[in-house]
Amino acid sequence: MRNKREVPAHIKARVKTVGKKIAELRQAKHLTQEKLAYGIGIAKSYLGYIERGESNPSLETLLLVAEGLECELEEILK
Amino acid sequence: MRNKREVPAHIKARVKTVGKKIAELRQAKHLTQEKLAYGIGIAKSYLGYIERGESNPSLETLLLVAEGLECELEEILK
Repeated sequence: MRNKREVPAHIKARVKTVGKKIAELRQAKHLTQEKLAYGIGIAKSYLGYIERGESNPSLETLLLVAEGLECELEEILK
Repeated sequence: MRNKREVPAHIKARVKTVGKKIAELRQAKHLTQEKLAYGIGIAKSYLGYIERGESNPSLETLLLVAEGLECELEEILK
């Protein structure tokens, strides 16, 4: 049974927080957006959207980003 | 710079593992797919795809599923 609803604000806020965390971890590793994005095969512009919380990344993308940052997925999602 | 590539097999395998984990946690809570999906506003068929590892869920969806299972996101992704 389908019951599609608006995504709650606290979920959207958490997606935004994950984006910020990715940006922080990337900067801590002295990686540019371009270098990280290129290394994991996604567009730099898409990484920018994710970091600004403007995109809702997929699990695959998050796993790729964690790999590019050489960290555990859990660290990104904390 | 864009450099889109095939997603590596170990990443795809991990997405599949997450689907299995969701099914396990749902069954441990004695929830049907229908009840869980309805409670979080996604289609039952979509939840089925996720549990079988046939869909690559977004962060928003994973957060919704964790909420529906009353667990932390980390537990699903372990």
